[in-house]
Amino acid sequence: MNLNLCVLEGDGIGPEIVKEAVRVLRAVCGARGVGLSLDYALLGGAAIDRTGVPLPDETVEKCRAAQAVLLGAVGGPKWDSLPSGLRPEKGLLGIRSALGLYANLRPATIFPALRAASPLRDEIVGAGVDIMVVRELTGDVYFGEHSRFERDGVLHGRDIMGYSVPEIERIARVAFGLARRRDRRVTSVDKANVLETSRVWRETVTRVAEEFPDVALTHLYVDNAAMQLVRDPAQFDVLVTGNLFGDILSDEASMISGSIGMLASASLGDGPFGLYEPIHGSAPDIAGQGKANPLATILSAAMMLRYTFDLPELAGAVEQAVSDALGTARTPDIRGDGLPVWTTEQMGGFVAQRA
Amino acid sequence: MNLNLCVLEGDGIGPEIVKEAVRVLRAVCGARGVGLSLDYALLGGAAIDRTGVPLPDETVEKCRAAQAVLLGAVGGPKWDSLPSGLRPEKGLLGIRSALGLYANLRPATIFPALRAASPLRDEIVGAGVDIMVVRELTGDVYFGEHSRFERDGVLHGRDIMGYSVPEIERIARVAFGLARRRDRRVTSVDKANVLETSRVWRETVTRVAEEFPDVALTHLYVDNAAMQLVRDPAQFDVLVTGNLFGDILSDEASMISGSIGMLASASLGDGPFGLYEPIHGSAPDIAGQGKANPLATILSAAMMLRYTFDLPELAGAVEQAVSDALGTARTPDIRGDGLPVWTTEQMGGFVAQRA
Ligand SMILES: CC(C)[C@H](C(=O)O)[C@@H](O)C(=O)O
Ligand SMILES: CC(C)[C@H](C(=O)O)[C@@H](O)C(=O)O
Repeated sequence: MNLNLCVLEGDGIGPEIVKEAVRVLRAVCGARGVGLSLDYALLGGAAIDRTGVPLPDETVEKCRAAQAVLLGAVGGPKWDSLPSGLRPEKGLLGIRSALGLYANLRPATIFPALRAASPLRDEIVGAGVDIMVVRELTGDVYFGEHSRFERDGVLHGRDIMGYSVPEIERIARVAFGLARRRDRRVTSVDKANVLETSRVWRETVTRVAEEFPDVALTHLYVDNAAMQLVRDPAQFDVLVTGNLFGDILSDEASMISGSIGMLASASLGDGPFGLYEPIHGSAPDIAGQGKANPLATILSAAMMLRYTFDLPELAGAVEQAVSDALGTARTPDIRGDGLPVWTTEQMGGFVAQRA
Repeated sequence: MNLNLCVLEGDGIGPEIVKEAVRVLRAVCGARGVGLSLDYALLGGAAIDRTGVPLPDETVEKCRAAQAVLLGAVGGPKWDSLPSGLRPEKGLLGIRSALGLYANLRPATIFPALRAASPLRDEIVGAGVDIMVVRELTGDVYFGEHSRFERDGVLHGRDIMGYSVPEIERIARVAFGLARRRDRRVTSVDKANVLETSRVWRETVTRVAEEFPDVALTHLYVDNAAMQLVRDPAQFDVLVTGNLFGDILSDEASMISGSIGMLASASLGDGPFGLYEPIHGSAPDIAGQGKANPLATILSAAMMLRYTFDLPELAGAVEQAVSDALGTARTPDIRGDGLPVWTTEQMGGFVAQRA
């Protein structure tokens, strides 16, 4: 067996953290006789600097030729003043869309070793938190028309929010399907008391639920969901929502775990192909200093082994090694509990050796 | 001096909690020779049941004739299956808009007596949290066109998000003005890396900031803001944002205080006129049982005394009485720390007597 990956290092800490994730993949695959072929391509600011655009055609082609994509992070102040069509984020949105990756899976869990790092009290997170946020990734106000115009001499900004029934159906099926392999509960989040998009969302999710009679469905307004995630995150199993609400709620949920430097994500379409990236950003302020936490990227690689390549044993080995690492040392982003502070490379090296 | 109020009890627990707030107002005004005239009108489900619409013209007229409006809460499952134009929430959105109340002020603070009730750890909230969320209330995707349509046999939901420069300018000025009376720091929240509405928002807020050189302005993406509110809420002074992000973030921020049953809000326009309401909902599940916490409504009445009537001494007396009450007993929504559990009426009675 040989795994064909396209690697997009991106900007800021991207190259450093991807390097460690690749090291871990090499180790875990090498030890088990699984081959690994890597092709590198440009995305985001790095692509702008070398080609003038955030998503060169060549990158899309290389990704399409691979079985999975490993991505670091994109963006940084260096490119913030560029016109919006030429900003690094456009590359990220573009690649998700070009590859048809409509389902973004963001697990928010608390590692036992990190319980004390959660901003939430022990009474609240003590029994564990294990949420799978399923965020729709190629629709919503993200991909509607964005425009500015003058009317009677007054400038307006305008964006179109919208979803079609098939777009909602397919993401709902992903959520219900995942729930079947977990605690069989789905919470769908919308703002149906105000938005028509949300009303269509709610009706559609309710209808899809009939295909999954063994899964319980609840609806929550987004303002309430933002509150419940802080009040009692343990109540959630699978949380499914649109692109915009998913962006906000998955970041909120991730913070509950104690460090955004720990959280992985998978972006999937209809087949096994997927793009895997940490949910944190490119952290240009600490780039190149060996301070970045590579574990979210390493855990993203583990998700890749599980979802794209159906190698749960390898994924589990990586996850166990990460767990062991957390009991041994920390990168500077996590409250240390008196444990030694390691560099990006030391952390990656430890996991690679254990996995 | 005589205060002319219009009172909208609304649905669910609305009537019970408003009753206590009125009791407190009567007490605090009576003791200081300030007159109080009350006119009652219908809003939300109560209005639908008696007039067929969520916002009767008479209600708008009565509100306009008053100096301030005290509102309970609206909505409930009873009216959830009505067409969207006839739902209780439409009454709430309609009255805000009809009265030109574009600035929604939602303080999120931790009462010292309630510190242990916050879901966040002592290390995080121990030094106190005092955020003023300023939410724009009459624009954004809330008030753009909402529609559903079929294209090629596929149903779509669609909503228009948008802001004009003058709408952003006026809410920004409210935020900067408030910051001047606080810690002189404003955080503006948007999603300028994706939305054109947000880019116009960011440019405009940045320009308005020049009128307030003594106030420091920072910009934050909404996903990051949702995270930072959990990670370190004490970092914020004034947080200004649009209607949709404000809905989500203010509810999230409110939870940090330990109970949404404690948090008040003021909705203001250009003059002293204002509408005051708790930020929690109508809680139909506990309506009529004496379990509702009236303190958010009582604190909303205190905000009314301060913002519309410029009676800080009376407002302070109410707030102090609420603080005293929390040291003495709790309604069932708040973790009790061994204190006695009081009914809605007992809680209101105590505050009325002390204020
Ligand atoms: C960078 C930005 C466009 C992106 C998004 O909002 O999707 C990011 O926040 C994310 O969640 O991956
Ligand atoms: C009931 C609903 C329409 C309303 C809103 O979203 O504005 C409520 O959540 C609020 O925040 O007052």
